[in-house]
Amino acid sequence: MNPSSPPAPTLLDIENAHRLIRPFIHRTPILSCEGINHMVGCKIWFKCENMQKVGAFKARGATNAIRSLEPVQLKQGVATHSSGNHAQALSWAASLAGIKAHIVMPSNSSTVKVDAVRSYGGNITLCEPTLEARESTLASVIEQTGAFEIHPYNNLKIIAGQATATVELLEDKDDLEIVMAPVGGGGLLSGTALACHYLAPNIKVIAAEPAQADDAFRSFTQKTFIPSIHPDTIADGLRTSLGSLTFPIILAFVDQIVTVSEASIIVAMRLLWERMKVIVEPSSAVPLAVIMENPELFRNKKTGIILSGGNADLDQLPWII
Amino acid sequence: MNPSSPPAPTLLDIENAHRLIRPFIHRTPILSCEGINHMVGCKIWFKCENMQKVGAFKARGATNAIRSLEPVQLKQGVATHSSGNHAQALSWAASLAGIKAHIVMPSNSSTVKVDAVRSYGGNITLCEPTLEARESTLASVIEQTGAFEIHPYNNLKIIAGQATATVELLEDKDDLEIVMAPVGGGGLLSGTALACHYLAPNIKVIAAEPAQADDAFRSFTQKTFIPSIHPDTIADGLRTSLGSLTFPIILAFVDQIVTVSEASIIVAMRLLWERMKVIVEPSSAVPLAVIMENPELFRNKKTGIILSGGNADLDQLPWII
Repeated sequence: MNPSSPPAPTLLDIENAHRLIRPFIHRTPILSCEGINHMVGCKIWFKCENMQKVGAFKARGATNAIRSLEPVQLKQGVATHSSGNHAQALSWAASLAGIKAHIVMPSNSSTVKVDAVRSYGGNITLCEPTLEARESTLASVIEQTGAFEIHPYNNLKIIAGQATATVELLEDKDDLEIVMAPVGGGGLLSGTALACHYLAPNIKVIAAEPAQADDAFRSFTQKTFIPSIHPDTIADGLRTSLGSLTFPIILAFVDQIVTVSEASIIVAMRLLWERMKVIVEPSSAVPLAVIMENPELFRNKKTGIILSGGNADLDQLPWII
Repeated sequence: MNPSSPPAPTLLDIENAHRLIRPFIHRTPILSCEGINHMVGCKIWFKCENMQKVGAFKARGATNAIRSLEPVQLKQGVATHSSGNHAQALSWAASLAGIKAHIVMPSNSSTVKVDAVRSYGGNITLCEPTLEARESTLASVIEQTGAFEIHPYNNLKIIAGQATATVELLEDKDDLEIVMAPVGGGGLLSGTALACHYLAPNIKVIAAEPAQADDAFRSFTQKTFIPSIHPDTIADGLRTSLGSLTFPIILAFVDQIVTVSEASIIVAMRLLWERMKVIVEPSSAVPLAVIMENPELFRNKKTGIILSGGNADLDQLPWII
């Protein structure tokens, strides 16, 4: 990177992250499906992070962030606010490291999610479901416990950890022409883009975002940070705004962000369930939805997709009304 | 095998089948899930035939049966009666070999299944939903077309093909103590038992069967063929009776058949979806249900399970009422 580059994990940081987390995470399988390839007119390899520990790539970043802490920092535990996969991942990684995880969750979180965090050993504090309440509650939890905050994505150790999914994808499949990831806060996307930049700079990195939560697309296009306001998408992992660390990396190393409709996300999700026989949550289906809506961008191209997570609600399938 | 052994594929037959079908089928992944292992108190490796071509192990046997035919036999195509995965598998394998598949299906088959067979190129004849009508319609289709009948399980080439799933499981995981498969007509189970007998004779082979379709259990226990009469199970792949070829192999080489309740099958199916993030059809969940109902049989044992198929109806989930 040249001197004007944003602060970002180096290749060595990412390699170190991989070495550090490898004993604890799954090397997830890479699947492809002729039926889907035939349907969309390109060849896709899916990196199945839905089969990762806790059912999402978040296990990578959380493990790297915790395992990188000094012993004195570890003693007081870690803390975050999250209602999603990061809450589960941090609780799981903390428990494996023998430390406490303090998780601030909005009071309207589903029972399933609260129970999941609790099952991984997370110490939950509920708060009002606003960003302000989440941040102030987290601040007071940290003040009381001395816990170390691990942000879900605006953290260089998290970004380096998420990058390792793409490192494995490129190791196992070395002739990809396009790599895709969904974008919410940008932790996965910035890690994906960095891994491609360092290891296979000719690969085109395309991010996928719901049109009804298109803050990253607008920020990227206008080259200025635009927060996510009232995102209204079924892809609940992608409702967050970019971070001060992730946005500059995305601006520097992502080639394109493409948005898609909710209807396409649901069709793509069902296709992955039905044809590839894997459970993915809606956020994971957004890249395939982009390909289905824009086949000409991908025609005959070898494309890798990070399937980000599999924590779908099995009682509320979006195609059953 | 000693002279009193039943007619069965030899190890060479199974190895030849594997060589013959390998270019056409997936080498399916083997997955394990710490959460499930912890819950049941043993270590399980799942051979994911739900991710096989056409979504079921049936692709193996159908390919072997078709690829083993003489050119003169191939010319008139193949035929079978089936409303399930064999119909899809035979249509798919025939289409790949450039020949016709004539499929007799009961008129009450779901549109989804009829469409699936048609999408693989199968030539469908509908008939009354009775065994008599299926057999007589098939006989007249064969008379008209000269097609070669490929029975879903009572066929040595089918049995040898299904055995290859276990060959791969044992190649990839060479210290298993128990191997499990569900039992319907017995094609998968007899192949599984033969592969273990030849390649790892110390492995205990345990079959899993719904209590509400327990003809194999009763036949096995009483050492005399008892047909399946009015089976009433959600595991639609396991409603058929054993065959004259499969039953003697099962009697000779299977150690135990254990039956389970419908409720356990649904719980096990949901567990595989929720924790392992794979779509399996109810039949595939029967072995895990056996372990959940009988944990003492498996305590601390390394157990391999053939996940037989993934063609679940995504509009009718058994846990959503």
